Formats: sequence, structure tokens, C-alpha cells
Amino acid sequence: MQIAIDMMGGDYAPAEAIKGIVDWNKESEADTHLLLLGEEESLQSFLAEQQIPAELYTIISCPDVIGYHDNPIKALKEKPNSTIATGFGLLARQKADAFISAGNTGAMMVGSMFSLKPIEGLLRPTISTIIPRENGKTGLLLDVGINSDCKPEHLNQFASMGAAYAKIILGIENPRVGLLNIGEEKSKGNQLAQNTYPLLKANTNIHFVGNIEGRGILEDIADIIVCDGFTGNVLLKLLESIYPITLRQGIVHPYFKRFHFEQYGGTPVLGVSKPVIIGHGVSGSEAFKNMILLAEKMIQTNFIEAMQARL
Amino acid sequence: MQIAIDMMGGDYAPAEAIKGIVDWNKESEADTHLLLLGEEESLQSFLAEQQIPAELYTIISCPDVIGYHDNPIKALKEKPNSTIATGFGLLARQKADAFISAGNTGAMMVGSMFSLKPIEGLLRPTISTIIPRENGKTGLLLDVGINSDCKPEHLNQFASMGAAYAKIILGIENPRVGLLNIGEEKSKGNQLAQNTYPLLKANTNIHFVGNIEGRGILEDIADIIVCDGFTGNVLLKLLESIYPITLRQGIVHPYFKRFHFEQYGGTPVLGVSKPVIIGHGVSGSEAFKNMILLAEKMIQTNFIEAMQARL
Repeated sequence: MQIAIDMMGGDYAPAEAIKGIVDWNKESEADTHLLLLGEEESLQSFLAEQQIPAELYTIISCPDVIGYHDNPIKALKEKPNSTIATGFGLLARQKADAFISAGNTGAMMVGSMFSLKPIEGLLRPTISTIIPRENGKTGLLLDVGINSDCKPEHLNQFASMGAAYAKIILGIENPRVGLLNIGEEKSKGNQLAQNTYPLLKANTNIHFVGNIEGRGILEDIADIIVCDGFTGNVLLKLLESIYPITLRQGIVHPYFKRFHFEQYGGTPVLGVSKPVIIGHGVSGSEAFKNMILLAEKMIQTNFIEAMQARL
Repeated sequence: MQIAIDMMGGDYAPAEAIKGIVDWNKESEADTHLLLLGEEESLQSFLAEQQIPAELYTIISCPDVIGYHDNPIKALKEKPNSTIATGFGLLARQKADAFISAGNTGAMMVGSMFSLKPIEGLLRPTISTIIPRENGKTGLLLDVGINSDCKPEHLNQFASMGAAYAKIILGIENPRVGLLNIGEEKSKGNQLAQNTYPLLKANTNIHFVGNIEGRGILEDIADIIVCDGFTGNVLLKLLESIYPITLRQGIVHPYFKRFHFEQYGGTPVLGVSKPVIIGHGVSGSEAFKNMILLAEKMIQTNFIEAMQARL
């Protein structure tokens, strides 16, 4: 399999991506070839320094980079030689089986939605975030920002996709799906939640456990919590703000350390026809290693096809 | 002024309410008469035990109580002699100037909306929560649960009411109002946020500072943050879950102690024609003391009229 990596995306590019590749190479047993997108000369010297075997990768020269403040749609059009535009081109032309970037998130989303085919029958792709629980487990909250206005059918599909991801990739046997809501009874909620409840209840591809209130997000009562992307994005950013607060307040605690979201590999775009993984801007080597391992697992398990079967 | 208090509401009724009255009496300089609603005999013995001067209060015998699990609408109808139904009756008949209860929140909301006149021109009443900030200040988030589906005009009125409350009651000179959103630019957000932005910008009764993302909720960048009641309620309950987590994890820290929301007095229902204050179910004596002081301040400052002028 061939995995394309944007080597210029992220605050510590390309050094952390290179280190991540070194660590990944020690751990992975798959027969993977990496397509490294970036400035050729710079990459050459970094790769040589780390003594990464030449047969492991091919450098694909991309002189341009889409910056964090670039307008995603405009930048993808005007910078065809950027790492992100090139990555999606490789996916679209079947030259790569997965694409990883810690670059401009908006450009990654736009690329996913417009360069790739959506999975047949899918209404909207989605992205999720990991939620750390006190018992050491993690939950999955989705959507966290692509779909700020949703319909019940969208949330129902997010539930199916999240459940497929939890089962196939995270190895949770019968993942519990909850609906984010403002009360436990099924009649509670805004129009969206009220109309989504019966769809989730009738969805035979998921194990629906009912409504989850705000106080239940950090509790281990659902493996997957679905919500509209407005609420999810506000929640994600609030949760992301907690770890820096503990740092400023001098609180060192293993549970709150798990709110350091940058440590997690990255989030896959669920619902597109190829594995696309978006990393955090401050991704370190561990995040890059984990993103490559995740891409391998998504390819090896035929995740896209398996998920498609559940929609 | 006459302030009615539901003595049977809350987990520690009536003991904590009685203690709160003792503490309030030491602090307050207002000429206030309390109307104590509850089981007469029980109240008599508690009041005698604490040697509360008899001229300070009148007991209004209410043999019924609306429980936490009672259906609000049904209970208000079927239990006319309950403390909550009686409290709203006193307000409606101008026999009380304010009403305080730590009882069934739903019944308090239903009573506020159907027993009292809304302020003229007001579309929907609202409730808020305090948000503790690291610098010791507090913000105000609203709506946190009455209005799960909102229109832009609703959020615009919440902003005006929140700003009036922050200025008149909390003493913040020129309170900064922010719109909860998923991006900083004015074009960001779901339909509701996108359409609310220009209304807030044009609202001359408030000092609008733009969009506030999830990461800005705990930062001191807006004194008031407005959102729909679905998002607000999820956020409130998530924030409420953090203090119990710190307790379970053995983290003792002054900032996280301020996430112990029960310590705050209670939340006023903004937008109704009389001061109504809803306390937390586990309100202790300090909460009751603060709720009476808040009711006094709302009456003394003619808060309702002042707020009405801003709508």
C-alpha cells in the first residue's frame, strides 16, 4: 500500500514528521511505501540524517504549501503544486491509498469533499474527536465541525460511521451509541434531537443507548456520542482549552494530561472513498507515527467498504 | 419589600434555607419581610431553634410539595397548595415582590412563563449560568436550557437581558457581549449564529465584541456569551461535571473549586415581570443567603423596569 504524507503540514514540519516515520518504521509490520510530499532538498537532508532506508519512500516534490491562514477553497485552486492539493490528486488518481496531513484543516476538509467521491449513499462526511474518560477508556464525539447545521438523517449516518470506526478500527465489540441531548427522556431536546432519536432507535447497524446529557460526555456511558457540528465543535474547543488551563495552574495529573489532544494521532475524515487523516497543527512525532499506523489499519481492514455496507 | 421563599425546595430543606435566613439577616440592611412557604409546624420549630425574630417573617402554610420527579405542568395544576404554586400565586396577586425556590426547576420555569406576565416586547425568558474564569472574574452564559430551538431575535434579546443583568446587578460597567460560534470571522457558524451576528452588531444596547469559540468560554474575553439553549445546556452540564471529577481524582485547586456551581446563589429567570430565582437542588445556606440578597438587589435596583427599557 502507498500512503501519502504532507511533510510540510504542522508547526514542526518536517522534523517531527521525519521522526514519526523513524518510529513508525520500528513498529509497523506492513508492506507500506510512503509518498513524502514537500520541498525535495529539505526532505532529502532530513531523511539522510535519520538514515531512513531509501526503498521505504518516494519524495514527491511540492514547492508550494497552503498556510494556516490561506482560504481553503482559493488556496486549493491557486496552489495546485501544494502538498495538500498534490495529496488529493494522488488519491483521486489512485496513486495513493491514504493521505495524511497536519496542515490547513479547512483545505483538508474541502479537498476531502470535492476531490474525492463520497461513499455511495452518504449525505455528509464527518470528523470526530476522542474524549478521554476517567477509567482510561476513550469515547468518540462526532460531528465536531464540518456540519454546523444538520438534519436527523445526517446524525443517523454519523452514528453508523462512528460505530463502524469504533468496531473495526478501535476494536470495540458492540459500541454503545448515544445522542447528545439536554435530557434523558426521548421526548427531550431541540427539534433536531427529538427527530433524530427515533432514527437512531430504528437503526439496526448500531447499539443505541439513548440520550447523553452534557454531564455524561466525560463519563463512560456511550462509546460514540453524536451531535451537530456546531455543538460538537464548541465542545471540542472547550475540552481542548482545559489542558492548557491545568498547565497554567500548575496542576499535573494523569487524567487531565489526556486532555492534551495533540497527543492523539489525528482524526480520519469519515465518509469519503479513501482514508484521509487530519493531524493537529502541533502534531509531534508520536502523532505522525500514529497517523501512519491508523492509515495502514484503515487500508488493511478495508474500512471504507465495511463502513459503506453499514450506511 | 416582601420576598417569598420555598422552604421545602432543595435536598436539605428546610434546614439550609433556615440557616441561610440567619446569615442573610446578619448581612442585609434592607427592610425586607420574608414569606416562608412550607409545612407550618416543621418551619415553626426550625425558626424557633434558630431564634429568628418573629417580625422578620410570615409563614404561609403549604401542605404540598412538587417533587423533583413530578411533571411540572401537571404538578402545578394538581398541587395548588404546593410551595411553588403558592409562590407564583403570591407574585401574580402582587403579594410578593420576588420568589425564590431550589425545588423542581421545570415547575419553576413553567410557573415563570405561565403564571407571570412576560416583560412587554419580550419573546422568550431565559436563564443563565456563571462561568468561572482563571483571573477570578466570572462570565455569564445564556441561554442554558429553556430555549432549545432559538431564532436570531431570541439570541439578540438574551444579549440585551444579559448585558442589563451584568451592568445593574453584577456591577460591570460596559459588559462585553460575545456570540458563541465555531470561528472568529463573522461569516462563520451555523445558520443561527450567522444570522444573529448582524443583529448583535446593530444592537445599540450592548457592547458586542464578536464571536467567541469554545476555547474562549473559560477565557475572560466576554462578560456575556449568548447561545441557543441546547448548546448552553450541554455546556453547563459538562462544566458542572468537572468539579466532581477533580474530587474523584483527588485534585484540590482553588480554580476548579469555582466549578462547584452549587456555591453560586441561584439563577434569575430573566424576562419575566417579577424577580424569580431558581436555586440548585443541593443549595446550602450560603446559596439561600445569596439568593435572598440577589432578590433584594433586583427589587431595589428596579431591575425589571431597567431591563425592559433595553429590549
